[in-house]
Amino acid sequence: MFPSHDLDFEGDELHEECGVFGIYAPGKEIARFTYFAIYALQHRGQEAAGIVTSDGHIAHVHKGMGLVSQIFNEDNLGHLDGHMGIGHTRYSTTGSSRLRNTQPYILETLDGPLAIGHNGNLINAPQLRRDLLERGVGLSTSTDSELIIHVLARTRGGTWFNRFRQLMAQLEGAYTLIILTRDGIFGIRDPWGLRPLVLGEMDGGYCLASESCAFSTIGAKMVREIEPGEIVRIDDKGYEIVAGLPPEQRAFCTFEQIYFARPDSILNGKLVHQVRQELGRQLAKEAPVDADIVVPVPDSGTPHAIGYAQQAGIPYSEGLIKSRYIGRTFIQPSDQLRKVGVAMKFNPLPDNLAGQRVVMVDDSIVRGNTSGPLVQLLRDAGASEVHVRVACPPIKFPCFMGVDMATQKELISAQKSLEEIRVHIGADSLAFLTVDGMMQALKSEDGYCNACFHGTYPFSTPIPYIELQEKHKFAGVWGG
Amino acid sequence: MFPSHDLDFEGDELHEECGVFGIYAPGKEIARFTYFAIYALQHRGQEAAGIVTSDGHIAHVHKGMGLVSQIFNEDNLGHLDGHMGIGHTRYSTTGSSRLRNTQPYILETLDGPLAIGHNGNLINAPQLRRDLLERGVGLSTSTDSELIIHVLARTRGGTWFNRFRQLMAQLEGAYTLIILTRDGIFGIRDPWGLRPLVLGEMDGGYCLASESCAFSTIGAKMVREIEPGEIVRIDDKGYEIVAGLPPEQRAFCTFEQIYFARPDSILNGKLVHQVRQELGRQLAKEAPVDADIVVPVPDSGTPHAIGYAQQAGIPYSEGLIKSRYIGRTFIQPSDQLRKVGVAMKFNPLPDNLAGQRVVMVDDSIVRGNTSGPLVQLLRDAGASEVHVRVACPPIKFPCFMGVDMATQKELISAQKSLEEIRVHIGADSLAFLTVDGMMQALKSEDGYCNACFHGTYPFSTPIPYIELQEKHKFAGVWGG
Amino acid sequence: MFPSHDLDFEGDELHEECGVFGIYAPGKEIARFTYFAIYALQHRGQEAAGIVTSDGHIAHVHKGMGLVSQIFNEDNLGHLDGHMGIGHTRYSTTGSSRLRNTQPYILETLDGPLAIGHNGNLINAPQLRRDLLERGVGLSTSTDSELIIHVLARTRGGTWFNRFRQLMAQLEGAYTLIILTRDGIFGIRDPWGLRPLVLGEMDGGYCLASESCAFSTIGAKMVREIEPGEIVRIDDKGYEIVAGLPPEQRAFCTFEQIYFARPDSILNGKLVHQVRQELGRQLAKEAPVDADIVVPVPDSGTPHAIGYAQQAGIPYSEGLIKSRYIGRTFIQPSDQLRKVGVAMKFNPLPDNLAGQRVVMVDDSIVRGNTSGPLVQLLRDAGASEVHVRVACPPIKFPCFMGVDMATQKELISAQKSLEEIRVHIGADSLAFLTVDGMMQALKSEDGYCNACFHGTYPFSTPIPYIELQEKHKFAGVWGG
Amino acid sequence: MFPSHDLDFEGDELHEECGVFGIYAPGKEIARFTYFAIYALQHRGQEAAGIVTSDGHIAHVHKGMGLVSQIFNEDNLGHLDGHMGIGHTRYSTTGSSRLRNTQPYILETLDGPLAIGHNGNLINAPQLRRDLLERGVGLSTSTDSELIIHVLARTRGGTWFNRFRQLMAQLEGAYTLIILTRDGIFGIRDPWGLRPLVLGEMDGGYCLASESCAFSTIGAKMVREIEPGEIVRIDDKGYEIVAGLPPEQRAFCTFEQIYFARPDSILNGKLVHQVRQELGRQLAKEAPVDADIVVPVPDSGTPHAIGYAQQAGIPYSEGLIKSRYIGRTFIQPSDQLRKVGVAMKFNPLPDNLAGQRVVMVDDSIVRGNTSGPLVQLLRDAGASEVHVRVACPPIKFPCFMGVDMATQKELISAQKSLEEIRVHIGADSLAFLTVDGMMQALKSEDGYCNACFHGTYPFSTPIPYIELQEKHKFAGVWGG
Repeated sequence: MFPSHDLDFEGDELHEECGVFGIYAPGKEIARFTYFAIYALQHRGQEAAGIVTSDGHIAHVHKGMGLVSQIFNEDNLGHLDGHMGIGHTRYSTTGSSRLRNTQPYILETLDGPLAIGHNGNLINAPQLRRDLLERGVGLSTSTDSELIIHVLARTRGGTWFNRFRQLMAQLEGAYTLIILTRDGIFGIRDPWGLRPLVLGEMDGGYCLASESCAFSTIGAKMVREIEPGEIVRIDDKGYEIVAGLPPEQRAFCTFEQIYFARPDSILNGKLVHQVRQELGRQLAKEAPVDADIVVPVPDSGTPHAIGYAQQAGIPYSEGLIKSRYIGRTFIQPSDQLRKVGVAMKFNPLPDNLAGQRVVMVDDSIVRGNTSGPLVQLLRDAGASEVHVRVACPPIKFPCFMGVDMATQKELISAQKSLEEIRVHIGADSLAFLTVDGMMQALKSEDGYCNACFHGTYPFSTPIPYIELQEKHKFAGVWGG
Repeated sequence: MFPSHDLDFEGDELHEECGVFGIYAPGKEIARFTYFAIYALQHRGQEAAGIVTSDGHIAHVHKGMGLVSQIFNEDNLGHLDGHMGIGHTRYSTTGSSRLRNTQPYILETLDGPLAIGHNGNLINAPQLRRDLLERGVGLSTSTDSELIIHVLARTRGGTWFNRFRQLMAQLEGAYTLIILTRDGIFGIRDPWGLRPLVLGEMDGGYCLASESCAFSTIGAKMVREIEPGEIVRIDDKGYEIVAGLPPEQRAFCTFEQIYFARPDSILNGKLVHQVRQELGRQLAKEAPVDADIVVPVPDSGTPHAIGYAQQAGIPYSEGLIKSRYIGRTFIQPSDQLRKVGVAMKFNPLPDNLAGQRVVMVDDSIVRGNTSGPLVQLLRDAGASEVHVRVACPPIKFPCFMGVDMATQKELISAQKSLEEIRVHIGADSLAFLTVDGMMQALKSEDGYCNACFHGTYPFSTPIPYIELQEKHKFAGVWGG
Repeated sequence: MFPSHDLDFEGDELHEECGVFGIYAPGKEIARFTYFAIYALQHRGQEAAGIVTSDGHIAHVHKGMGLVSQIFNEDNLGHLDGHMGIGHTRYSTTGSSRLRNTQPYILETLDGPLAIGHNGNLINAPQLRRDLLERGVGLSTSTDSELIIHVLARTRGGTWFNRFRQLMAQLEGAYTLIILTRDGIFGIRDPWGLRPLVLGEMDGGYCLASESCAFSTIGAKMVREIEPGEIVRIDDKGYEIVAGLPPEQRAFCTFEQIYFARPDSILNGKLVHQVRQELGRQLAKEAPVDADIVVPVPDSGTPHAIGYAQQAGIPYSEGLIKSRYIGRTFIQPSDQLRKVGVAMKFNPLPDNLAGQRVVMVDDSIVRGNTSGPLVQLLRDAGASEVHVRVACPPIKFPCFMGVDMATQKELISAQKSLEEIRVHIGADSLAFLTVDGMMQALKSEDGYCNACFHGTYPFSTPIPYIELQEKHKFAGVWGG
Repeated sequence: MFPSHDLDFEGDELHEECGVFGIYAPGKEIARFTYFAIYALQHRGQEAAGIVTSDGHIAHVHKGMGLVSQIFNEDNLGHLDGHMGIGHTRYSTTGSSRLRNTQPYILETLDGPLAIGHNGNLINAPQLRRDLLERGVGLSTSTDSELIIHVLARTRGGTWFNRFRQLMAQLEGAYTLIILTRDGIFGIRDPWGLRPLVLGEMDGGYCLASESCAFSTIGAKMVREIEPGEIVRIDDKGYEIVAGLPPEQRAFCTFEQIYFARPDSILNGKLVHQVRQELGRQLAKEAPVDADIVVPVPDSGTPHAIGYAQQAGIPYSEGLIKSRYIGRTFIQPSDQLRKVGVAMKFNPLPDNLAGQRVVMVDDSIVRGNTSGPLVQLLRDAGASEVHVRVACPPIKFPCFMGVDMATQKELISAQKSLEEIRVHIGADSLAFLTVDGMMQALKSEDGYCNACFHGTYPFSTPIPYIELQEKHKFAGVWGG
C-alpha cells in the first residue's frame, strides 16, 4: 500500500541522466553558444553542468553543481577561449551528486587534452572498472565517463576514428558521447541507438546535441540525426560521418518520446509534440470514455491530453495548475507541511471542474504516489467523475541504460493489478496505453527499447543486476 | 518604428512589483510556512525576497537578492524564530535593484519592532519623502515602504487600528501592506483596492497573502478577500477586520486579472483561470475569424486561448513551445546571438502548424517587440495565415500604481494605429479586446482601474508625473 | 578563582571598537586609497568594514563582515566612484556583530547624502535613543552612529560647522567622527579627546585617519593631530580646522598608548613604539629584578620588553612564539582541544629559556587567564625563575568609551590582591607599573583618561551603568 | 639593473611549496585535529589546502583555494569522518594555482582509497609524466603528487612497505610524502632528506608533520625526526619505522633553517630560533661593525638580529614595523600607489633611529628589490649610517627541489658583485654570511643542500633544467 500520508514531495517523475552538446565554429563565441545550448538542454539534468573549450592546444574547463544559470557567469565564461567546445548537463541520484562527478571529464594525454561528455549508462561499467583497477589505474570519480576516457587513452593506432572503434568494441550499454580532441569534436552513438544525438549546421560551423531543441536557441539548423553505431567528426573541413560499429537491432529509448525530450525536438524524424499527441489519440481509441472535459497532468501530460481530446471530441481544458517554482527548492517540507501533499505543487481549477466528468491524462505512472492525491484534488474541486488515462503502458521493470527508474519494488505496476491501482488512486476508471498501441503510434519499424515495459533488454549479454545496483555504494568509497 | 533587429531579449512582459504574506500561528514553523508561501508568490517578483519573524519581543530578519529558493536555506531559516512572520518577494527595475531596497523593511520603535511589506506604488511618495526629509528624517532606501514605516512611527495614540487610520489618511496610491507589530500581524488594503489581499485560515492560525494560491501550498484555506479600505488583524484572538478609510470608487488593477495573478488564485470571488477564459470567449465574440486552430502565446496566454477556442468552436492546440529556463539567465546574448531573436525563447511546432490558418492568442501587447517575430516563426513553420487576437485593449498610458509599464513612448498602442501595428507585426488580421467587452467579461460592477487603457487615474489629486518618473534617478542618490 | 581548566581560547586581549579614515583627493583612486588605508587600520577592528565614496551628488557604498581583504575585491571597489570617500573598520561584541551594524552609516537627507564613521562610545546613547524613538524616529541598527546621524539630520541652520557644533552639544562620551557630506569630508574629535584623529596631506589632496600609520601606506604625510573639540574640513580649498566645542579637561585613552595603536603611529607627538619602550623603562626602574633574560609576551609586549631590557641591562630575547594565524579561525576547539590551552597559540623556545631566570613582560593583564599558562609554559621549557612585569597598572574598572573591557567581575585586579594574582599565575614575582610611573612615562601634562585604573570617568554627568550594560540586549531587539 | 621604481609589491620573499600532516587516533576528532595542525603549518603555503579522512573503507575529502581558515568551516569539517586523516597546505606559483592542483590527491584503487600529500619537487617529474602518458595514463593535474599516486597504483606485491620501496626507487628529487591507505597512515622522506618530517605522539594516537610546531597546537609531543630514506607507518599497533632506500649523502635544505620553518620548530635536533640566533652570532663574528643599534627586517630577520646584537654587544631594538596585514590582500596597488613602494608594508620608527648608526639584519636577499628601499626608509627616519648584514650567503643558483626561487637572471647575487649590490641598495656597508661560517653555525656534519649558494645539486643524475622550467607552461595545457 501507498498510504496517503507517505506522499513523496519529489513527485512521481523519471529522471534522465544527461544532455550533451558540442560545437566547432571558429570565430564564434564558443563558450556563450555552448552555454545557451546546454541551457536549452537543462530539462535533461538539473544537478550539475560543465563546459570545456579549446583551441586544440590548450583546453579550458568550468564545471559546477546546480542549474546552468547558477554555474556560469560572464566572468567564468570569459575564460573559456577557443574555437571548439563541449558542454554537459547532468542529473544524478543523491549518492553520487558531487562536484567530482560533474562532466565533461577532462584529461591530459599524449595526444593533447581529451574531454568527454556522456549520456547513458554502461551495463559493463563494473567490469570495465575492475579491469582498469587491476591494471593499476586509479580512479577519481564514480562515473562511466572516467572509465571511458581511461579506456580511450589506452587505445592505440592511427586515426581517431580507429581509436573510437576500439573504444566502442569495449563498451556495452547506452552511450551517446561528445568528445573534444586536439583535432576536432567527435560524436558517438551506441549501436543500439539508445540515446539520441543530432547534427546541426550554423553560419560558420557545426554542432552536435542530444536534442535539436538546442539548435534553434543558437540559430543552428538540424542536418540529420546520427544513426546507431555512427561516429561523427566536426572540424574545419566540415563534418564527416563514418560507421563505428555495425548497428545492433535498434533500441531507441521509448521514454525519450513519451517524456524526456522537449516537445519541440525532432526524434526519428518527427516532432516530439506531434508524437505525444499521437500517443494521446491512440489512447483515446483504445480507452474511450464518456466525459465532459479532458485535462492534462501538467506540464508533461499536455500534448498527450490535447491528442486525446481531439480524437475523443471532448473539449480540452486545464484542470490543474502546477506551481512553476515548487520542486526546485532545497528546503524540505517538514512533517507539518508534508501533510499538505500534492497541494504544495498542484492547485485545481474548480470553476473548470465543478460537476464535470473529467478525463485526467498523464504521460506515465511510475511509483503511483501522485495520481491518487491528484484524483482527490479534482474531486474536491467538484469533478463528478475522474477517469485516469495514461499515455504509456504499465512500467514493470527497472532501467539500466540511464534512466533513474525506481527499483522494481517501488514500481506500482510491478506490484499491483490494474484494478488494484485504480482502487489505490481512487479513479472511476483507469487505462494504460497498450504496448502494441504505443508501437503503432510511434511506428515500431523505428525500433524501440521497451525493456521497462516487458523486461527484455536489448543486449546479448545479461545485465549484471547486482553490481549495477551496488554502483552508488561503490561510488561512495569516498565523498567530496 | 520598432525595427525587427531591435528585438528585446527580455521579451514583452509586464512586471508587477511585489507579493506579500503574513502569518500568525503559534506552534507552527513560521519561517518554513512563510518560505513556501512566498515561494508560491514568486511570480509577483523574482529579484529579491525577505522574511521577518517575531515572538513579539525579538524580531529576526533575513533578506537577499535573487529567487526565494536562492536566498533561503535550512541554516538561515533555522534562525527565524517566533510565532508570527511576514514575507515579501519583489520585482524592481534595474536602477533600484539593490539589497538595501529589499523588504520587509524593519525598524525598532518605541512600541517594539515594526516590519512592513508593501505591494503597490504611492503616487504621493515624492511629497511624503520631501516632508520627511524636511522634518529632518534621514532615509536609507528609495522605497515607498521606508516612507510608510517612518510615517507610521510618527503616528500617535491608542490602538494600532487608530494609528493605521492616521497612516492611511496620509497615503495616496496603491498599497497593500502587511505589518508585523509586537501585538500581531496586520493587513491593510488601500481604499481603491488597487492590489489584492486575502485572508486565510489554517489549523492553529491565520494568514494573509497577496493571492490565495499561496494558501493551498501551506494547507490553508481562504476565508475572504480583504475589501478596499479595510484593516485586518490576526493574532491569538483570531482575526478582526475593521474599516480603515471609507472605500473610494473601486479600482482593482485589471492586469491582475489579465496577467499578473496566478491562474489558480481567486480574485473578486472568481478563479482567475476562469476569468481569463471568459476574456478569451469575449474576444472570440468580438473578433471571430475563420481559422483551423487556436494557439496561445505560452504560458500566460493559455487560458485566454482555451476560452477563445471553446467559444469559436476551433480546435485548441499548442503551436509554440517556450523554453522553461531561457529568460532567467543573467548571461547576455552577444550580438552574434541576439540575431537569433525570439527563437532563443520560443520554438514552433511545425507539425501542428503546417498549412493551417492559425489564431495566435496573447494576453496583451505592450511594446510590441515580440509579436512580430512570433508571427514570423509561425509562418516559417508552415502556417498559411496568422490572425493575432489580444485578450485586452490597447495599452496607451503608463501605470503609476506598481506596474513597471514602459513609458508612453515605448507603448506601441500609444504610437501606432491598429492597422499600423498589424503591418508592423505582419499578421493577416489583428484585434484587441474592447474595454467594454473586457468589462463585460470581468463584470464591471466589481470596479476596475483601467487607467492604462484610457488614461483616467482613480485619484482625486493629479498624478505628479515628472516627480514619479524621476523616482529612480532620485533613488540613485546612492548605490550599494 | 579562575581555575586553569577555564582557559579562554580567545585570550586575554582588549578590543578597540573602530578605525576611521577619510580622503578628499580629486584625480586619485579614492576607493583604492581608502581600501589600503583601512587595511592599515585593520588592527582597530577585524569584524566588519565599509567604504563610502561620492562625487558630491551620488554616493556609493560597500560594506561587509570580515577582514578588509575579504570584503573588498577589484569588482566592488570598481563601483566606488568619486573624488572623496570615507572608510571604517569595526570590532564588535558577538551580540551586535551583524551586517546591519556595519559602518559607515549612510542616509539621504535634504542636504544630500550623509555618511558617518564613528570610533568611540557615547555614554548618553540610551538617552539619545529614547529621545529619538519618542520623537517617532524608527531605528534600524543598535549603533551609536545611527543615533548621531539622526541627531545631525535634525540640526538646522547655516554652515556644516554650525550644525556640527549643535551636534556635539548633544553628544557625551567618546567620539571621533568622519563625516562625508555633499561639500567635503569632515572630522570631529570629542572635547575630551578620548580617541585619536590625525590630518594628513598627500599629493593632490588631504586625508584624515584614526592613526598616522594609515598615511605612509598611501604615501601621505602627517600634518598634525586634530585637537580635542576641533572640527576639520577637507575639500577642494584645502583644509580648515575650527573649534567645535571648547575642550574639556584632556582625557586621551591611555590604552591607545599601551596597547591599541600600532607602534609606528604617532600619538601626542610621539611615536607609540618609543612611548611603550619608555613604559618598559619606567617599569624596570620601579620593579627591577635580578634575572638573566627579558622576554616579551608577543606581539604587543615587545616594545615594553625592549625598554625594560635596555633599562635593566638584561639581555632581551624571545622566549615565546605566537602562531601568526591561530586566533583568526572560526573553528572552535572542541573539549579535546581546549585542554591544550595556550599551547594552541604560543610555543616556548626552550633553548633560550633553559636554566634562565626570566622576566616576562606583558603590556597588560585583564582577566588574567593567559598569564598563568604562559608562566607554566616557560617553566616547562626550563626557566628556573619567572618574574612577571606588567607595563600598566592593575585594571579595576570597566570602560564605557569604546573599549570592550570585561565587566568588573571578570577583571582579575578588581577581584584579587597583587599577591593573590601572583599565586594564581604561579610567578616568582609580579609587579604592575604604578599610575604615577605610567603618567611620568607618558607625560601627564598631555592629559589621559585613566578611568579603568581608578574609576573616575572624565564626564561631569554620571555614567548610566545599567542602561549601557543592557545595550547589547537592547540592540538584540532583532537579528539580521 | 633593478631600478627603484620597479619595486615588487610582493616583496623579496622565498616561497616553500607545502606543509603536510597525518594522524591516526581512533576516538579523536580527526578533522578538527588535522585542521589545527595544518593551520599551524600555514606558513608553508597560503594558496590552497585540503584534508582527507577515512575509516579505512570510505574516505572523505574537502579541499579549496585560500587560507586554511577560509576553506574549512564547522559544516565541511563535520563531514570528514574517520579515525585517520591527512592534511596539506600549499603554495604554488600563479600559473598552476588552481583548484584541480590542490592536495591531498585522492584515488580509488584496487586496494581501497589512496590519498597523498607531497612536499617537495621531483626532478624526474618530466620523465615520469612522459612515461605515464606513454603507457596510456591520462593525467588530470600538473602536480607531482598525481604522478606519484599513479606510479604507486602500479606497484605490486606484498606489503605497503615493499610497494613504497618500489615507488621510492622511481623518484628522484625532494619528496616528503604523507599517504593515507586503507591500513593506516604512512610517511616517507626522500633519501637526501631535503624536506623535514617529524613523528609525534599524543594521548591515543600518533601523528606526522612537516614541522614539530604543529604538534604543540594539538597537544602532541615529538617522538623523533624521520631520517632520510625512512618510511614510517602509524596505525592501531602504534608506529613502525623501516628503511625505504639507503640514505644518500644528507642534503637537508639550508633554507628551512634560515627562513622557512617556524622558529619554534625543532630541526636536526635543535630549535630553529636558536639556530637562527647562532647564524646571527656567526655573522657578527665575521662582519662586525661599529654601530649604535641592531634592528631586524621583520618578521623573519628577528632571531638573526637578536643573535647578532648579543654577539656584537650592541643594543637590539626594532626599527621597522611591518604591517601585519598588507601582503595578504588581493587588491593590486595601482600605479598611483605602487610609487609608495615598501612604505606600503614597512614603517620606520624614527625615535629609535634618529642619529643612530644602524645595523639592519636580514635573513636573506633574493632579488634585492626590497633592501634598497628599506635602507632609504631608515635614512629618511634619521639613521646616520646603515650597515646591512645578511644571515646567509649570496644566492646564485635556482632551486629545483621545492623552493620557488627566482630564475638566475633575477637573483641579484648572480648578477652583481658585493660592492655593486652595496651601491645598488645604498648601504654604508654590506656583508653576507660565508658558506663556511653558515655551516659552522649549522653544524655541517648534519649534511645540508647548499645548491642555491654554490650550484652543486645533491643528485647523481643531472638536473633537466629546461623541462623543469617549462613545467608551468606544460601544466598550462588546460585551465580550470
